[in-house]
Amino acid sequence: MGNENNSALAMKVAVLIGGVGGAKLASGLMQVVAPERLSFIVNTGDDFRHLGLKICPDLDTLMYTLAGLVNPEWGWGIAEDSTITLESLERTYGLEPWFRLGDKDLATHLLRLDLLQRGYSLTEVSDCLARRLGLAARLLPMCDEDLPTIICSDNHGELGFQEYFVKHRWQPVVKSISYRDCEKASMSPAVTVAIEEADIILIAPSNPWLSVAPVLAVPGLRTALKRALAPVVAVTPIIAGAAVKGPTAKIMAELGLQVSEAAVAEFYHGIIDGFVNDIRNQPLDVANLQSTRLDTLMTDKLAKVNLARETLAWIAGWAS
Amino acid sequence: MGNENNSALAMKVAVLIGGVGGAKLASGLMQVVAPERLSFIVNTGDDFRHLGLKICPDLDTLMYTLAGLVNPEWGWGIAEDSTITLESLERTYGLEPWFRLGDKDLATHLLRLDLLQRGYSLTEVSDCLARRLGLAARLLPMCDEDLPTIICSDNHGELGFQEYFVKHRWQPVVKSISYRDCEKASMSPAVTVAIEEADIILIAPSNPWLSVAPVLAVPGLRTALKRALAPVVAVTPIIAGAAVKGPTAKIMAELGLQVSEAAVAEFYHGIIDGFVNDIRNQPLDVANLQSTRLDTLMTDKLAKVNLARETLAWIAGWAS
Repeated sequence: MGNENNSALAMKVAVLIGGVGGAKLASGLMQVVAPERLSFIVNTGDDFRHLGLKICPDLDTLMYTLAGLVNPEWGWGIAEDSTITLESLERTYGLEPWFRLGDKDLATHLLRLDLLQRGYSLTEVSDCLARRLGLAARLLPMCDEDLPTIICSDNHGELGFQEYFVKHRWQPVVKSISYRDCEKASMSPAVTVAIEEADIILIAPSNPWLSVAPVLAVPGLRTALKRALAPVVAVTPIIAGAAVKGPTAKIMAELGLQVSEAAVAEFYHGIIDGFVNDIRNQPLDVANLQSTRLDTLMTDKLAKVNLARETLAWIAGWAS
Repeated sequence: MGNENNSALAMKVAVLIGGVGGAKLASGLMQVVAPERLSFIVNTGDDFRHLGLKICPDLDTLMYTLAGLVNPEWGWGIAEDSTITLESLERTYGLEPWFRLGDKDLATHLLRLDLLQRGYSLTEVSDCLARRLGLAARLLPMCDEDLPTIICSDNHGELGFQEYFVKHRWQPVVKSISYRDCEKASMSPAVTVAIEEADIILIAPSNPWLSVAPVLAVPGLRTALKRALAPVVAVTPIIAGAAVKGPTAKIMAELGLQVSEAAVAEFYHGIIDGFVNDIRNQPLDVANLQSTRLDTLMTDKLAKVNLARETLAWIAGWAS
């Protein structure tokens, strides 16, 4: 292990992050940064109530990924899980479940529900779950309040995130996106500290509009990023004019944006100091913005670790 | 089918009932009385919060029994159920679950939780579940409020019912039993109507102290039984100086009572007009109390149906 690596291990890194795409970079960072110095500030705009449970898809995806439990084929859910309860809801009670809940996955939802009912905050609950899974990295919900992402679509009207994403398989055309009740939310002490104490703040290659924007909608968080001493660096979710997976490119087009890394950098304007572009893209030339090109595709474990290591090393080279 | 049977089919029967023992008579009654004329007023003193869920053991035992879903070996739970979620709570999260929740069973708890969170009462929720399972009989929780049975024990202090019954396998010595918050509970309109409209009111051979007493603790219910025009008849839970199953005899001894059908009849004094004793017991001779002796052991389906038929026919013979 070289010096570069040792210094990375000693860094405190905070990461704004969503679901599957972001979790790839997160698992790379786990190999490069000492886990107890890693804080993930996770999108909870996708959270919803379902069958009485509080479901936190992005927190769970990240947690299952980092704990090595994730279904490797899907990038979410638990590997080798079954759906006996779900099938009983359908066969015995005649319901038509549209959101997959695995039987092993249900253990997470029941434990979370139990702790929330006992009065613990979502931050405390997420911390408890992560520690029980042996994770030293901190998984911080972006806030403790409900701040649901609402999709205004062309032909289905307003949709909750999971209705849009899962029930309608992100097919409705997005007219606008809003973050309901954001005036009622506030930064948790844990998120405030994670941003203040970070040596580097990353924005994972998650969907900027669906996964990162809800985090930025938490009152005070945008200002905290601007005030932070640490450099803020985004990793492109757009490679060669397309998203690796999911609706990022589709939504950009529907919102009238060019499907390009430049439009993503523009979206983060005023927040980011640096931008990790992909080697497959053209160089980005934006005033007052550091940028580099790395292989951001993360097709295997080595590629994830390499991207994490090279990103941190590059930032260390220009941030003082 | 004889005349006796036809008249039974036309009767409205209300049954105060607990769990496994009572459910046997209930399944017999389903074959003798038109199900839509059957109302079960079910003990909910055993209900408790567990893993964020509202668990209603007696309602579920009765519902699963009448719907033909019950595990025939145990008399509770769902047949051929698995415990994948429970095992995940143990293996993945390091919990030690002491209350068995099957995966198929969880479908019931999730649907109940969902409906309760939407603001429906426990009576409405129980009705919805039963109808989805195709049951025409009414399964009425004794009240909509929480009215938990508390066991005061010798060496464990106060125990919630499931702690006493499941966690400690009813081994602690019972000093007294109380029904917490009963002043906050009230008879639901559905229970009031079921008692008022009944042609016959039965008290199932459930544990008088643990299963029937909580029902009688609902404010107004005891008075409603006294005022009811219908005869009120209890079926003995004591056969030949013992309970068929469970802690009835043990508790009677611990409470300083003689373990006998006479002590049970005395416990119901002032409420019951009749008592169905077992053929294995001595005849009961109590002033102003009708009594007969029938085979109450219910070892198979035919015995359950016979007991139900003979009980109703006997009552019809003396009640005007």
